[in-house]
Amino acid sequence: MEYHGGNIYEYNKAIIDFSSNINPLGVPQCFKRALLEGIADFSVYPDREYKKLRQNIVRYIGNVSIENIIPGNGAVDIIYRALEAIEYNNLYISTPTFSEYKRAGEKVKMEVQEIDLYKHEYEGINLGCLIENIKEQSVVLLCNPNNPTGTLIKKSEFLELLKNLQEAKSFLIIDEAFIEFAPKFKDASMVEYISQYDNLLIIRAATKFFGMPGIRLGYGITSNAELIKSIERNMEPWSVNTAAEIAASCIFDDHEYIKATLDWINSERSYLFEKLSELNGLKVYNSSSNFLFLELLDEKMDAYELQKKLLEYNILIRLPKGFNGVSRYNFRIAIKDRINNDILISSLKKIIEINKI
Amino acid sequence: MEYHGGNIYEYNKAIIDFSSNINPLGVPQCFKRALLEGIADFSVYPDREYKKLRQNIVRYIGNVSIENIIPGNGAVDIIYRALEAIEYNNLYISTPTFSEYKRAGEKVKMEVQEIDLYKHEYEGINLGCLIENIKEQSVVLLCNPNNPTGTLIKKSEFLELLKNLQEAKSFLIIDEAFIEFAPKFKDASMVEYISQYDNLLIIRAATKFFGMPGIRLGYGITSNAELIKSIERNMEPWSVNTAAEIAASCIFDDHEYIKATLDWINSERSYLFEKLSELNGLKVYNSSSNFLFLELLDEKMDAYELQKKLLEYNILIRLPKGFNGVSRYNFRIAIKDRINNDILISSLKKIIEINKI
Repeated sequence: MEYHGGNIYEYNKAIIDFSSNINPLGVPQCFKRALLEGIADFSVYPDREYKKLRQNIVRYIGNVSIENIIPGNGAVDIIYRALEAIEYNNLYISTPTFSEYKRAGEKVKMEVQEIDLYKHEYEGINLGCLIENIKEQSVVLLCNPNNPTGTLIKKSEFLELLKNLQEAKSFLIIDEAFIEFAPKFKDASMVEYISQYDNLLIIRAATKFFGMPGIRLGYGITSNAELIKSIERNMEPWSVNTAAEIAASCIFDDHEYIKATLDWINSERSYLFEKLSELNGLKVYNSSSNFLFLELLDEKMDAYELQKKLLEYNILIRLPKGFNGVSRYNFRIAIKDRINNDILISSLKKIIEINKI
Repeated sequence: MEYHGGNIYEYNKAIIDFSSNINPLGVPQCFKRALLEGIADFSVYPDREYKKLRQNIVRYIGNVSIENIIPGNGAVDIIYRALEAIEYNNLYISTPTFSEYKRAGEKVKMEVQEIDLYKHEYEGINLGCLIENIKEQSVVLLCNPNNPTGTLIKKSEFLELLKNLQEAKSFLIIDEAFIEFAPKFKDASMVEYISQYDNLLIIRAATKFFGMPGIRLGYGITSNAELIKSIERNMEPWSVNTAAEIAASCIFDDHEYIKATLDWINSERSYLFEKLSELNGLKVYNSSSNFLFLELLDEKMDAYELQKKLLEYNILIRLPKGFNGVSRYNFRIAIKDRINNDILISSLKKIIEINKI
């Protein structure tokens, strides 16, 4: 089984979970009301065409039509089904990145190439390095902002990549699971180019931004009607459950929740970044997401050792395990609310200071 | 897209849905309470190992251990993943039966053989006809009771089949999605043979009996640890959503709901069978499930014509479309509560009598 964050189930105590990147505001209030009102909807099959669900997504995304939307059982469902549907031989992904991309590519027997794609300190993308390598009929799958580094790729870079991929009869998939956390996210998203490029598929999810991984609601966005049809052909019927349909009927209009989330991420990301950067022996990378990627600079302690020590403070961090191209001194933490962020800061400070003695 | 029942979304009016076989008692009351109490659970990832969920299933099923259980996103998810995992070349299914078996087999490039398996009036199975055909490394996938015919296969027949399949190094999958509706269902289920035969996989779901297709909770039961591991390897992470986990924490202990469901099916199945059998020009087949399979005997009207006429009475039936090996005079109806059953009976009576004139 792949290693992921958020596995709080293996610890027999209360844990502050910094290992999975979920909005600390929790489930939107509107979801509770909508669930109660919609309880009888569980007693019928979901609409296999998910018309209302897709309409709700379109209203949220803007600039796309319901024919451009394909919903799935979480973003991972779309990733698996899309690679299956595209039927190309080569998959290019970055190191480090979300481990399910490689797993999904291998499952459909693609040749998976992992490329050390990010520039110094994960500040941007080495586009040349990627473009040189591309064979015809390839899929490039990038996470933007990237998990676990928080790197945001610029639109101009994506556009250059898209043109090159068009010439190489190849496809670009952008996993925008974390895009709403990026500064000025509407400008950061590539959704506006959907109609212009039919070799582009964008994947989104309600999981991260709306704090509901339990709901399993992901969706793909593309203007490529053939691809949509082909994914549909590969999909299991009723893959999206009724709770996800109900969530989509309210969360995208919950402007209060959306505003509170944006306020929170803007204030806590810079706060946590600054405070952690002050600690000696710790490198904090810039992030456009709701998590920070870090490196322990003192070789006396690696991330595994640090995790053990932080568990004494009831804190769980994300180990480098499962991410290729990182060292055992790297780890990832979620950005949480002020109280929990402060607990993390003070705990890390104590551990790092003791370690130095 | 495959044709299924329950697609009430394409009609712009209130419909009495006799096309999908869902418990008319609706969602168990306990689910509403449990959802409210568990709302915060949506804000964390489901346990990837689904320990509690599997424990709840084991308590309900009895005689199996949690290592024997693999949960999925509805029964269809288990069907797809199991055929993928077993990696045999041949799939034997019956005609008529649930259309997703063929689709799943074709998806993993198995050679799918549809066999006219049922005896006269769908009263049992032509075991010889199946056994003669079996090549080595095959999978036989049977629905018990069968959809759409309601046929229940006897244990002794399954045991003979299992022995033959063992010799042929082949596998038996029994889809028991409707088994709880069968008379004395604990005797009818093959679950007790799980530990004895490692070439047996049983699939169950909360969909039908507990009236919640929207929840997407299916599960496989097998003593074959290799198979479980292999399905897990093929599975997407977090395939089962939190609403399904919450449902499993209460519905299996809702003895009131279970008793009410058994009382309802025992009284309404025989009532509807008798009343419909009285209608001239209509053949009703015996059923051990929560639906009846029928045939129009007068060639002046086929099921498609009948559906049109019944829609004027706001009634939707299941057309023979999508079921191989049936004629255009066959159709399926769900067994509903007394009021709705009476509406169906009187509407059918009127249509058939007018048709005769």
